Amino acid sequence: MRSFFRPAVDAMTGYVPGEQPKPGTKIIKLNTNENPYPPSAKAMAILHQIDGEWLRRYPDPYARDFCSAVSQVLDVPTDWIIVGNGSDDVLNMLVRACAEGRERKIVYPTPTYVLYKTLAAMQPAEILEVPYSDNFELPIEALVEAQGAITFIASPNSPSGHLVDTDQLRELASRLNGVLAVDEAYVDFASGSALALVREFENVIVLRTMSKGYSLAGLRLGFGIAQPPLLAGMFKVKDSYNVDALAIHVGTASMLDQDYKKTCAEKVKANRSQLAVDLKQLGFTVRESHGNFVLVTPPTDAETLYLALKERGILVRYFSQPGLSDKLRITVGTDEQNQMLLEALVSLLP
Amino acid sequence: MRSFFRPAVDAMTGYVPGEQPKPGTKIIKLNTNENPYPPSAKAMAILHQIDGEWLRRYPDPYARDFCSAVSQVLDVPTDWIIVGNGSDDVLNMLVRACAEGRERKIVYPTPTYVLYKTLAAMQPAEILEVPYSDNFELPIEALVEAQGAITFIASPNSPSGHLVDTDQLRELASRLNGVLAVDEAYVDFASGSALALVREFENVIVLRTMSKGYSLAGLRLGFGIAQPPLLAGMFKVKDSYNVDALAIHVGTASMLDQDYKKTCAEKVKANRSQLAVDLKQLGFTVRESHGNFVLVTPPTDAETLYLALKERGILVRYFSQPGLSDKLRITVGTDEQNQMLLEALVSLLP
Repeated sequence: MRSFFRPAVDAMTGYVPGEQPKPGTKIIKLNTNENPYPPSAKAMAILHQIDGEWLRRYPDPYARDFCSAVSQVLDVPTDWIIVGNGSDDVLNMLVRACAEGRERKIVYPTPTYVLYKTLAAMQPAEILEVPYSDNFELPIEALVEAQGAITFIASPNSPSGHLVDTDQLRELASRLNGVLAVDEAYVDFASGSALALVREFENVIVLRTMSKGYSLAGLRLGFGIAQPPLLAGMFKVKDSYNVDALAIHVGTASMLDQDYKKTCAEKVKANRSQLAVDLKQLGFTVRESHGNFVLVTPPTDAETLYLALKERGILVRYFSQPGLSDKLRITVGTDEQNQMLLEALVSLLP
Repeated sequence: MRSFFRPAVDAMTGYVPGEQPKPGTKIIKLNTNENPYPPSAKAMAILHQIDGEWLRRYPDPYARDFCSAVSQVLDVPTDWIIVGNGSDDVLNMLVRACAEGRERKIVYPTPTYVLYKTLAAMQPAEILEVPYSDNFELPIEALVEAQGAITFIASPNSPSGHLVDTDQLRELASRLNGVLAVDEAYVDFASGSALALVREFENVIVLRTMSKGYSLAGLRLGFGIAQPPLLAGMFKVKDSYNVDALAIHVGTASMLDQDYKKTCAEKVKANRSQLAVDLKQLGFTVRESHGNFVLVTPPTDAETLYLALKERGILVRYFSQPGLSDKLRITVGTDEQNQMLLEALVSLLP
């Protein structure tokens, strides 16, 4: 049959999102790093009173109310902010604005967020993957040598959970001709951020999401922070009305409810520490994590354990790829969820 | 200064959305073809009860509840439906899947929706614009000769308001090797649809939106209907979680509330007829329209009139481009809004 598609599209396989059973399904869902606590009650109250007029009309193409909230909380100018339909949309805009073919390639250390590779495939842009060492040192020399149009560094990184040192990112930014994109999706559970680099470098963008720290994965809201000249090219490829009116309202109220966000993040961090202790007692190797998840090596076959847990209604993430196939990524749940996981593991381990 | 961007992005100017003053602003907004009536009360009731759990978790990547509602209402299989963050997102997926450079170009008759050109520029894909004749006959021979990877036909078309005959679209579909995309954003105000062609041709996609007929421009929800092999390539380039959980809920309830949608559309059509009569009495030439807008030629300079109306708090759409610069596109408002427009015109016309 004739193909309607570009060769790059024929050649690619789409990104496969993590399993998403419906809410209400009897499942303990520790596979896609959602926050186990509910969204801000203040934000939900805003949502429950919203007037139909906000839906009847087109939304603000620049989500300015949300930008004002971000500006106030993070102390950056409003015109240094670009808002996306999730931070995935911001990543997509960056790729569409900057990357292309062999000359404008995408570079990142691996393992990391798989979407970078998918976005490159659909552009298409060539990729250069630089493997992390076992202790997840940033491979600065190889990254600099590659001189990507975009270099992606997720920090905290998934699935490893490690935080990249800001001084190392500073060195990298200063030695790259292209854009350094620091993907801080998990920053709310970490002990540091590279946000300061945005002021120092015209080629740095820091990406944030409302999906993790703010418990709003279902709302689709993320943003990038960079100096205006870098954002200018991204605005050109932005879908005009990429963020809906409800996301702007709920996101603004959530951003302004910092106390609640911090309280939840502290609980997640406490649960993360306890979970690590408990898993180690069961014979797991547990990497130190700055995200709301832990990357663990079970004392038995990882894939078998993943499937056995799934059969018991507990979803964790298994990556069938080199360097990860002996590991599981487990989202930090509530105390109760973590206890149920541990009980299941006790009964499943040899 | 060095550029971070692809040459295509440096060369393009972004799409400029219509002016969007905030709700609450004292403005009669007849410039971006929103429905003047509020969204379905049933849908708003769903929104006002929604549980935070739907926001905490990632949404269904395929918006299956919404697809089921569409399937039920339009009598098409659920796997013939692809859902987007507005139909703009579906247009974007189609362009990313199919169009590229000179060999895979984008073809459309003009004047029409300006976004087709913007999407081509950012891909980049070459475009071939075929001007409509003064009476908006479809230029079939020229479109067939162009053999685009995608041929876009908006029907009803904006800003002209004309509906393209289904038999003509059938002939076009049968003679094109590439995809024929029939953009039916305004179908709810029209006397016909090309949906039947989707069953007849593997290369036809029909696009729909919830922005116009369902009064949900602020929600960002649209969809495409085509045979599964055509959708397969589009799914590959779809953002995984492109449609948020709120849009799925509100959109599903709105789609199922067909009675309300039809009642509103009937009111818009009645207002459209009356507005046409009244404008003709003021000396305007008014084109017959199948959309929720009319394209009119005022008996005075169009741009001057646009600016004078704007000064009085009435926004209409002026296009500063060949063939349209003597015209205005006016969204059909409520009776009251249309009366205020007419009163303003009476006082402004020479």
